[in-house]
Amino acid sequence: MALAEKKRVCLIVAYDGTNYHGWQVQNNGITIEGELNRCLTELLGEEIQVIGASRTDSGVHALGNVAVFDTGNPMPEERISYALNRRLPEDIRIQRSYGVAPDWHPRRCASRKTYEYRIYRGEFPMPVRRLYTCFVYRPLDVDRMRRAAACLEGEHDFKSFCQAGAQTESTVRTLYSLKLEEQGPELVIRVCGSGFLYNMVRIIAGTLLEVGQGRLEPEDMEGILQAADRSAAGPTAPACGLTLVQYEFL
Amino acid sequence: MALAEKKRVCLIVAYDGTNYHGWQVQNNGITIEGELNRCLTELLGEEIQVIGASRTDSGVHALGNVAVFDTGNPMPEERISYALNRRLPEDIRIQRSYGVAPDWHPRRCASRKTYEYRIYRGEFPMPVRRLYTCFVYRPLDVDRMRRAAACLEGEHDFKSFCQAGAQTESTVRTLYSLKLEEQGPELVIRVCGSGFLYNMVRIIAGTLLEVGQGRLEPEDMEGILQAADRSAAGPTAPACGLTLVQYEFL
Repeated sequence: MALAEKKRVCLIVAYDGTNYHGWQVQNNGITIEGELNRCLTELLGEEIQVIGASRTDSGVHALGNVAVFDTGNPMPEERISYALNRRLPEDIRIQRSYGVAPDWHPRRCASRKTYEYRIYRGEFPMPVRRLYTCFVYRPLDVDRMRRAAACLEGEHDFKSFCQAGAQTESTVRTLYSLKLEEQGPELVIRVCGSGFLYNMVRIIAGTLLEVGQGRLEPEDMEGILQAADRSAAGPTAPACGLTLVQYEFL
Repeated sequence: MALAEKKRVCLIVAYDGTNYHGWQVQNNGITIEGELNRCLTELLGEEIQVIGASRTDSGVHALGNVAVFDTGNPMPEERISYALNRRLPEDIRIQRSYGVAPDWHPRRCASRKTYEYRIYRGEFPMPVRRLYTCFVYRPLDVDRMRRAAACLEGEHDFKSFCQAGAQTESTVRTLYSLKLEEQGPELVIRVCGSGFLYNMVRIIAGTLLEVGQGRLEPEDMEGILQAADRSAAGPTAPACGLTLVQYEFL
């Protein structure tokens, strides 16, 4: 029997990260990657292992993460989204599936990634938003946060905004934009960049929250960047406020 | 020992209805009212039974439902929100507590209630919104839905929009406004009225969805009202799309 020619399929993957131990397969818990591998293997009748674009942490959400895999199954690429969604748990939903070149790799091509970090401001948390926002009851000075955010736009060494111990060749990244938008009680930090270091968006959010509460000054940002030391920046904001919104491949 | 004088306390109650069998205490499952009674009884050291303004169904959410109870405990009314929130599960949060007159009853005074029914439009559901919206993949003609909604504003006999078998003296109600607002992929039906019949907002939403998909005409609304028959209106839309937003006492 001739081997079916393998084709590469790309998935746009949305999920509620609340009930998962993050993206990456691990022994201790259910993961997004693990669920995709399990359901694709059942659906296509061959062992499938996806390659993810972003290995999001436990509790982080996504509207559009990206994964690819190879299959010899003749099912049309565009139909895989429908068939896979019937097997996946309801907190993971493929938004689109399509064919890509056999050597296309989501982590090896230039891309723009957009993340949102959502803060819920109020005297008490709002239950329907508790899993998707970080609750802050102290008043936040959004103008100060905006001035601090502006200092981080552009190309910088973001070593101070990278979890200590993370192994990366270079800690220089480019933020195309870092904007704050007020949506009623929610404050959205929206950041678009060429790439992000480990925990970088959550450390940026945690640092901007310090500025908003007066514990850091907008003018401190330059010194924090120059320190190239994780301890110079603010704390890592909680995972649940973070959502990977979109990947755009250039 | 002299009996402490009882005072009446009002609570503004927000909750994520996903994990509850609705508001009202029942034998078969955990309810919002049951959790409030349990935690208040523990906190105040006396048997407490709250009276709720709106007995929302299983899966329905609230940003501001209202409950009152009487207590002889001297804890200041405004502090009860803080103390109670430390005992409640995280999907129920008191937004405010304050004293009211001893004979004040949330169902026996004139009020304006605002509900939102949220529809998520897309080819596939979005996991982070699955518990708070009704997913609709068929295209919706919002202009047609707006024309139909306008026919329901004002004072009408809403018997066709009341679950059959519900016992009510009068089925005449006044809708102060019934508006549709597009928020990206979400379509929000926002309705404000003097009072609502059983399942009325969900039946209005279900009927407007029929109009939006071309299975009913905006011009049919008048006849549906006149029929005074539940079977004339559209289906009851799913509970998870519904949120009780606000009570205003007049």
